[in-house]
Amino acid sequence: MRLADLGEFGFIGRVAAKAAVAPGVVLGIGDDTAVTSPTPGMHTLATADLLAEGVHFNLEWIDPYTLGRKSLAVNLSDMAAMGGIPRHAILSLAVPAQMSVEFLDSFMAGFIDQAARFGVSLIGGDTSASLGGLFINVTLMGEQYPQKVITRGGARAGDLICVSGTLGDSALGLEMLRSGRAPWGSLRRHLDPEPRVGLGLALAEAAIPTAMIDISDGLVADLGHIMRLSACGGRVELSSLPLSSEYRESLAGYAADPYRLTLGGGEDYELLFTLPAARVEEARILGEANGVAISVIGSVVAEPGITLLGEDGLSYEAPKRGYDHFSAT
Amino acid sequence: MRLADLGEFGFIGRVAAKAAVAPGVVLGIGDDTAVTSPTPGMHTLATADLLAEGVHFNLEWIDPYTLGRKSLAVNLSDMAAMGGIPRHAILSLAVPAQMSVEFLDSFMAGFIDQAARFGVSLIGGDTSASLGGLFINVTLMGEQYPQKVITRGGARAGDLICVSGTLGDSALGLEMLRSGRAPWGSLRRHLDPEPRVGLGLALAEAAIPTAMIDISDGLVADLGHIMRLSACGGRVELSSLPLSSEYRESLAGYAADPYRLTLGGGEDYELLFTLPAARVEEARILGEANGVAISVIGSVVAEPGITLLGEDGLSYEAPKRGYDHFSAT
Repeated sequence: MRLADLGEFGFIGRVAAKAAVAPGVVLGIGDDTAVTSPTPGMHTLATADLLAEGVHFNLEWIDPYTLGRKSLAVNLSDMAAMGGIPRHAILSLAVPAQMSVEFLDSFMAGFIDQAARFGVSLIGGDTSASLGGLFINVTLMGEQYPQKVITRGGARAGDLICVSGTLGDSALGLEMLRSGRAPWGSLRRHLDPEPRVGLGLALAEAAIPTAMIDISDGLVADLGHIMRLSACGGRVELSSLPLSSEYRESLAGYAADPYRLTLGGGEDYELLFTLPAARVEEARILGEANGVAISVIGSVVAEPGITLLGEDGLSYEAPKRGYDHFSAT
Repeated sequence: MRLADLGEFGFIGRVAAKAAVAPGVVLGIGDDTAVTSPTPGMHTLATADLLAEGVHFNLEWIDPYTLGRKSLAVNLSDMAAMGGIPRHAILSLAVPAQMSVEFLDSFMAGFIDQAARFGVSLIGGDTSASLGGLFINVTLMGEQYPQKVITRGGARAGDLICVSGTLGDSALGLEMLRSGRAPWGSLRRHLDPEPRVGLGLALAEAAIPTAMIDISDGLVADLGHIMRLSACGGRVELSSLPLSSEYRESLAGYAADPYRLTLGGGEDYELLFTLPAARVEEARILGEANGVAISVIGSVVAEPGITLLGEDGLSYEAPKRGYDHFSAT
């Protein structure tokens, strides 16, 4: 079926019928605004991510169901990085006229299934025609008690730097996609990232991290955000970076330097956080409880800047420092 | 200056420096999520509007400052239609590489000036490259006490139907733009609509409307939304439709039928609401206090559907019934 046959309001009606409504949603899709009821005593957390065709995704590489999952996952990862409880999503879509209803139905199924996994209600949005490819914007709102919110700004000299999961898999997957040689399984980390919502929440509940961020721009760039806002610096030992066995096995032919993609590749959607040394074991236990390993990769120092120490103990120069959407390089 | 020279983080830094931070904003631009503090006892209201280049705006017809104002105004109009107090905005932009920093600076100045007029803080967003024109998504959050929120669903048979301001000016402005014959002044209503935030709030505070919506899709379509959700019907007398003197004077040459653009043109961003007949005078006084006339244009009836009565008292067939983004017609 063509979108023109279903119509904008037909599409909205189909979506509204499928959107789960959780407690706290007073009025979902279908009025001028959605209405929700905040949990007394909690702050509201809000974040948005825009995914543009040809920039963030290529429809030859990702199926619509997985794209629906990913468009919410990248926002859930931001919510996790604050220790927030995800609650409500608002989805805006600009859709090329030739796109099929089946494509959009599959996209929405992926989005709504992902939302259901994390207790998120789709409460509103907007749909538009597009003359220039598919554009997806998701605004995600969440909640948390004020004293439990973890910002980027609380790292202190002497803290340890930790990361969840493994790094570089997503960036390697993207390089494999670009080369046209990749089996789908190895691309999962790039196409269908798993936001660390449970871990972020558990760490925040236990008040373990002094600062936290999710790695979307790349380890060096995102650690730089923490250190700049915390007015500290970071020393990272490359030999401590967690690499998956798939990453080690697949790397040959894509990168001579095993660290380039782990330091600057981005889109890992792992949690990067600092904590007092005395609390590392608690963090590791919470990682295990949430099915993801926690690795100590370095420490916070008083001097600003990020220092990378190679396996030889000498300073290492990172080849790439994160993704800039407007940069020509 | 080219955007590539400023960079994504340079642009975000410039925006963050200009974004006013009002009470209730705990953490604005610059972390994984924004953090706000809800007013105890109030519900949260949230809405989003996506503006796509070539669909919602044409850069030959609108300057960047006015586009910045309009991209927030259309959301403020939705907030007004609920009787909500606008609070926080999240702005996502997908920007073509060739766009200048000066263009974006002017766009942001318009957005932030409009936000300041209505006490709105820009608390976050996302920026991306675009391979297909400029895309703007604004999510606006607001607040209101539960019992004061006005939905689309409360109209009752016997209520009167009212509208603020005048209708058709925006649609006529668009036709004038398309014809290439328009002086800028007459296009203000299309390019730079004034959201009826003060009026919507005053009506809600006084608990006058039984149902309310803003006219974005066109009078007939938006009245249809109210009546469907209220399980009622509406009778509208065309002779009661408020037409501006500019509209009457400029109409010749654009439309033989003076009502077509007022019924289906859309983008009026006036408030359309129903109320008990006994409260019309109160509504008129609140209109005066907010600098906008209130007109009674018809009444709510038990039978579903919208009936339009021409000046001859006979039923009138509307030529166009609102804008559908996915419709081929």
